[in-house]
Amino acid sequence: MSTPATLVNHQVRLASRPNGLPADDNWQFTEESVAEPVEGGLLVKVLALSLDPAMRGWMNEGKSYIPPVGLGEVMRAGGVGVVIASKHPGYKVGDKVTGGPGVQEYWNIAPNQLKHSGLARIDTRLGTISQWLNVLGMPGMTGYFGLTEVGQPKAGETLLVSGAAGAVGQTVGQLAKIKGLRTVGIAGGPAKCEWAVKELGFDACIDYKAPAPAGAQRWDAVREGLKQYCPDGVDIYFDNVGGDILDAALTRINRKARIVICGAISQYNNVGGAMVGPKNYLSLLVNRARMEGMVVFDYADRYPQAIAEMAGYLKDGRMKSREDVVEGGVRAFPATLLKLFKGENFGKLVLEVAKE
Amino acid sequence: MSTPATLVNHQVRLASRPNGLPADDNWQFTEESVAEPVEGGLLVKVLALSLDPAMRGWMNEGKSYIPPVGLGEVMRAGGVGVVIASKHPGYKVGDKVTGGPGVQEYWNIAPNQLKHSGLARIDTRLGTISQWLNVLGMPGMTGYFGLTEVGQPKAGETLLVSGAAGAVGQTVGQLAKIKGLRTVGIAGGPAKCEWAVKELGFDACIDYKAPAPAGAQRWDAVREGLKQYCPDGVDIYFDNVGGDILDAALTRINRKARIVICGAISQYNNVGGAMVGPKNYLSLLVNRARMEGMVVFDYADRYPQAIAEMAGYLKDGRMKSREDVVEGGVRAFPATLLKLFKGENFGKLVLEVAKE
Repeated sequence: MSTPATLVNHQVRLASRPNGLPADDNWQFTEESVAEPVEGGLLVKVLALSLDPAMRGWMNEGKSYIPPVGLGEVMRAGGVGVVIASKHPGYKVGDKVTGGPGVQEYWNIAPNQLKHSGLARIDTRLGTISQWLNVLGMPGMTGYFGLTEVGQPKAGETLLVSGAAGAVGQTVGQLAKIKGLRTVGIAGGPAKCEWAVKELGFDACIDYKAPAPAGAQRWDAVREGLKQYCPDGVDIYFDNVGGDILDAALTRINRKARIVICGAISQYNNVGGAMVGPKNYLSLLVNRARMEGMVVFDYADRYPQAIAEMAGYLKDGRMKSREDVVEGGVRAFPATLLKLFKGENFGKLVLEVAKE
Repeated sequence: MSTPATLVNHQVRLASRPNGLPADDNWQFTEESVAEPVEGGLLVKVLALSLDPAMRGWMNEGKSYIPPVGLGEVMRAGGVGVVIASKHPGYKVGDKVTGGPGVQEYWNIAPNQLKHSGLARIDTRLGTISQWLNVLGMPGMTGYFGLTEVGQPKAGETLLVSGAAGAVGQTVGQLAKIKGLRTVGIAGGPAKCEWAVKELGFDACIDYKAPAPAGAQRWDAVREGLKQYCPDGVDIYFDNVGGDILDAALTRINRKARIVICGAISQYNNVGGAMVGPKNYLSLLVNRARMEGMVVFDYADRYPQAIAEMAGYLKDGRMKSREDVVEGGVRAFPATLLKLFKGENFGKLVLEVAKE
């Protein structure tokens, strides 16, 4: 292994804030030489980065659940890496770790950054590196706590989840099946839908990209699918997309239904930042239902037990995972991120930064 | 007292469904002779009717929390009356009752209608007839259970309520003060706002009709008022209006805030029935907050204890009530109903049908 001093760290920084879809000129590529870790710190070589819809929100100015990425800063990203130098007694060279390295090749962590780095050692016997960014990582934790804590699932109920073939959606749907719910997904394209049903065991999956028959409106097929596949209505709707699909789901909720607001990928790139709200929200009133937001970080102290449970499901085959791993290193980040917003990723989108 | 056979019952029926604000041609005036009650039934002379924003929804076709009023049917309305003939062992002439007589002068209740009539005897020592349509009636119960069950108030929190001078709003705000919350209202016009603060004890009330200063946008004053009067954010927002005010409130909610969806009067008369959804709903995600609908009928078995509690507050002066009583009988119903949608009522809107 190279000594750190000979290494160059390639980085992707936020150069300007996008209006609509992120464009090339919103990014800046930089490189720095890699320093030795300081006393009490460590140096991680990044192996893979997690690409998430939430990244689009971090690029906007203004208050959210975490501060925005500052202009000129390395773009925030979760990832997995390997310790290549350590002056921290708790980590040794070769340890695999997860945390928030950002979009760069090397992550030099000073002792005063440790607390907020999200750094944790991972056990690759429980899952592959990309699974640690998927069902054992943030998306898996989001699905786990969003479903169990906010969704309050009960066996026999019907769960609907959008973005069903995405990172969070695949976890939510499979967990719901494990917990005895009828599970219906919404995804884009026949391949994703077939995978959700045949591989993941969803009871049905509605293809929101299916062409509308002659005379039909754009979202008629989704509404028809909801009637056909949720004949007893929807008790939990786990929403990753917002927009027209959220509105369609609102027309099918049952009394005392729970809508988990996890994201709204259909709205993140609206030009001017204008969101479209759920025009059918009074269905909450009619049905005495609830719409509730969640942020996974609130459950950080319970990740270990959730990871253990999910690793058990991975091992016994009740949980499958699919990652869409893109090669090309950090320079491929800008183009790869756009796959999310076009719905082109099939499974959890992972950017490979280096081979192990 | 006249014998029933000599009486004429004037009625207001739904002739057609409105598109936008109800118009004259949506109504039909009819009259019928009043029959003697059948064995086991009773006859009520209607004294006053409750005019509520929810009436607009009942005029629309389609599923809601209760069926729509059918074309040609007497318009649904809650009210208070006096028994003038009884063949029911539980009621005697002179008893004051509340229930759902509809917009008519006499309410002839057959035994098989009793169960769904909402009929209950009222004790006018606890409150006036119009108070029985206000804080001791449906609006009061809506405020009581909406705040306590859905809002989950805790002393020291900040409550915001729209329609603060309306029937539900005045109850919610005063109850919140009794329970130790900082209480801020939103109402239309300086008179209503002054009344909410000086008479009802609200900590502040924002006038949403205040003219915008030069260069300001339509809702800037509301947003500024929210910053000024809710310096620690909003823990409970009790929403009666929807639209832009709901959006403004969403920008000020605290972590784990509860938004009680009670109504959306700003949206009920949109032409074509198109609702505008809350475009800031992702504030629910950022703040791990919840938006939940409620329908008062769900709490019917607990009305007696709530009425007893509210009557106690009326008696000890901690709860005040204001009704906007319009004379003119059932023929004045169509014009009087419109006051609600123009925000012209000051207090609970009541239509007097007959003097006691």
